[in-house]
Amino acid sequence: MKRLVLKFGGTSVANLERIALVADIVAARRAECRSIAVVVSAMSGTTNQLVEWTRGAAGPDLHGKDYDDEYDVVVASGEQVTAGLLALALRRKGLKARSWLGWQLKLATDEAHGKARITGCDNPDFIRSVDAGEIAVVAGFQGVDDHGRVSTLGRGGSDTSAVAVAAALKADLCDIYTDVDGVYTTDPRITPKARRIDKISYEEMLELASLGAKVLQTRSVELAMNHRVPVRVLSSFEGPVAKPNTGTLVCDEEQIVEKQVVSGVAYSRDEAKFSMIGVEDHPGVAATIFGALADAGVNVDMIVQASAKTEGRQNIVFTCPDRDAGHAKAVLEKLNGNVGYESMTVSRDVAKVSVIGVGMRSHAGVAKTMFQALSSKGINIQVISTSEIKISVLIDASYTELAVRALHTAYGLDSD
Amino acid sequence: MKRLVLKFGGTSVANLERIALVADIVAARRAECRSIAVVVSAMSGTTNQLVEWTRGAAGPDLHGKDYDDEYDVVVASGEQVTAGLLALALRRKGLKARSWLGWQLKLATDEAHGKARITGCDNPDFIRSVDAGEIAVVAGFQGVDDHGRVSTLGRGGSDTSAVAVAAALKADLCDIYTDVDGVYTTDPRITPKARRIDKISYEEMLELASLGAKVLQTRSVELAMNHRVPVRVLSSFEGPVAKPNTGTLVCDEEQIVEKQVVSGVAYSRDEAKFSMIGVEDHPGVAATIFGALADAGVNVDMIVQASAKTEGRQNIVFTCPDRDAGHAKAVLEKLNGNVGYESMTVSRDVAKVSVIGVGMRSHAGVAKTMFQALSSKGINIQVISTSEIKISVLIDASYTELAVRALHTAYGLDSD
Repeated sequence: MKRLVLKFGGTSVANLERIALVADIVAARRAECRSIAVVVSAMSGTTNQLVEWTRGAAGPDLHGKDYDDEYDVVVASGEQVTAGLLALALRRKGLKARSWLGWQLKLATDEAHGKARITGCDNPDFIRSVDAGEIAVVAGFQGVDDHGRVSTLGRGGSDTSAVAVAAALKADLCDIYTDVDGVYTTDPRITPKARRIDKISYEEMLELASLGAKVLQTRSVELAMNHRVPVRVLSSFEGPVAKPNTGTLVCDEEQIVEKQVVSGVAYSRDEAKFSMIGVEDHPGVAATIFGALADAGVNVDMIVQASAKTEGRQNIVFTCPDRDAGHAKAVLEKLNGNVGYESMTVSRDVAKVSVIGVGMRSHAGVAKTMFQALSSKGINIQVISTSEIKISVLIDASYTELAVRALHTAYGLDSD
Repeated sequence: MKRLVLKFGGTSVANLERIALVADIVAARRAECRSIAVVVSAMSGTTNQLVEWTRGAAGPDLHGKDYDDEYDVVVASGEQVTAGLLALALRRKGLKARSWLGWQLKLATDEAHGKARITGCDNPDFIRSVDAGEIAVVAGFQGVDDHGRVSTLGRGGSDTSAVAVAAALKADLCDIYTDVDGVYTTDPRITPKARRIDKISYEEMLELASLGAKVLQTRSVELAMNHRVPVRVLSSFEGPVAKPNTGTLVCDEEQIVEKQVVSGVAYSRDEAKFSMIGVEDHPGVAATIFGALADAGVNVDMIVQASAKTEGRQNIVFTCPDRDAGHAKAVLEKLNGNVGYESMTVSRDVAKVSVIGVGMRSHAGVAKTMFQALSSKGINIQVISTSEIKISVLIDASYTELAVRALHTAYGLDSD
């Protein structure tokens, strides 16, 4: 292996003992590869404390913004501390190591503070240092914008940092160490029959991440897919020598020999359903409604439109994250007048359950299996949405676990 | 006033409530001056925690060094947090403000990590921003070395940052807010008759700081003297509107109309006395002894040399900080052979008491007053050392308070 990137999350670096264990893992991985970069998150709990302080200092509304540039200055300090401490711990083991902060690495981002997107990472000094055998300990989650201000990438952003560093280094592998030992066919807390997936395609992982699986930040999977960086998710709690065939490799579809029709079942309870009844039916209405929601930063997901009972009227049903529901409702109420509608109801007791698999492209009957499995348990489907490799349904939230278990069994994902 | 620098120490920014009070003070000071830079320390307790972590990660001996570059990465994060939080608190009050970290300010230092010296601070963007009315909140204590690595200035380094920023801005005044309301004629914990000094010269303040007064970092006074920056020490605990004539102004001797013969009495218990008896007496012996100590980083203070009883031998007595005593002893024991001596004793129960005053230059009898005052209390003087504006004596540590009180009275410093 020519170059290797390792990433350790907050629970893996939660205290000095855990940081020492991480140093053990890094030292052991040196046997495989001399050029190593390690990306670290803040010690778990630190980021929450720092965020709380920013709210306390700025006032609860942070000057009416979700985030700002000074928020980033404060919050980015957490990863700085871990990076320095891990570099010290590696030196203690006699290894050459140094920390790289966002501005030193020149990890460029846009100016969307608090949720910045990486725009580039080009630093020949960094690559030279790594190839000279000095272990690079990179403070994750942080970058620097065009004005030389500190920026942060949003929750889970250290995953994205790791993939960006791997892309910059053209690394052979980006290992994401976390507190679970891989990506599962579904949440093991819901069914003990959930199985660890050996290999999963970028496309499937992207759907899983967007549909509720919390193991990787969506943006990191996108970036990995764009740069074809092989990413492996594995546990940092198994000690320095990972067992063979552990973890889950996220890779190109072509590298996966045994393709499943459905690879996993995801769910999300952070959903709200809006039913707008008797909306005026003329061109531009949908554009007005969803344009206003988009302008307000509401992330609309499923959309269904059908004729209403009233002549010349239609019904529009859509979903958005539950946390945006109050905001969305205010936007739509303000809109009544520009766009007339008879009534609007918001249902917050809904959940989205999805099945994902690249095999869907070539297999018929995937949807039928899903609807039958849910129907046999008496679960009513409220909204359906599909893409090339996933089917999502919106159901009553109280049926979530039942639905996930039924689908896991129906698609033959249960472990023996 | 054209430009103003304010500095707040760790106890003044200890928590969000105190940071909000600091924001009140800064807002009130805007009435005097539109171009303001505020230098902040870490929240009190933070730096100790961070230092403890570095020791834990690196091992107690920090790879055999006192400090290293990664130590600085970790420890500098404390000031970063405060700078961001204060900028947020100022914005909450509707003021324009932004934080400046060491690398953004381009506060250049040498590479002596953990105790770096400022080598320059030249950043036109910074001056422009301050003059445009955006309050600069500078993370104290930190800079950046020639290799773009984070450096820190040592304990109390934020004072030095503040003076460096004031020098760079050619500020009219650098106000150091702290938890005491000024510089006192001596430690008020030793005598309630200690008085706050209204004005003190750079030279006197430098002696006071080096001789044990902890109110300002020595290096900051040096820097203020070199750049002729007027520095005022005052309390941040008196609320946003400081009373007139509060604090102590450190300034040019010429600005002080009523000069005292003695301005203050300082003391230090961090002293060890080495008595080397019967040292070979030939040229180069002193150079060998003190050269070895200097190479080992031991800061030798008072030195006395006299003929010994044995013909062709001399006695050498010197003092160094108590914390260096073990180290110094080892160096000298290793030296025996190169430089022969009959015996060596180390006394650690000693204290240094000093009187300081620019008036000494023109007044005779200052030393006589000191010796009489000590003698009248039965205090034996072990070593004497003098400079143009101070006299220091080494005495038995148990007489420290008695000596300080006696001298304070003898020089007419007692308050009414």
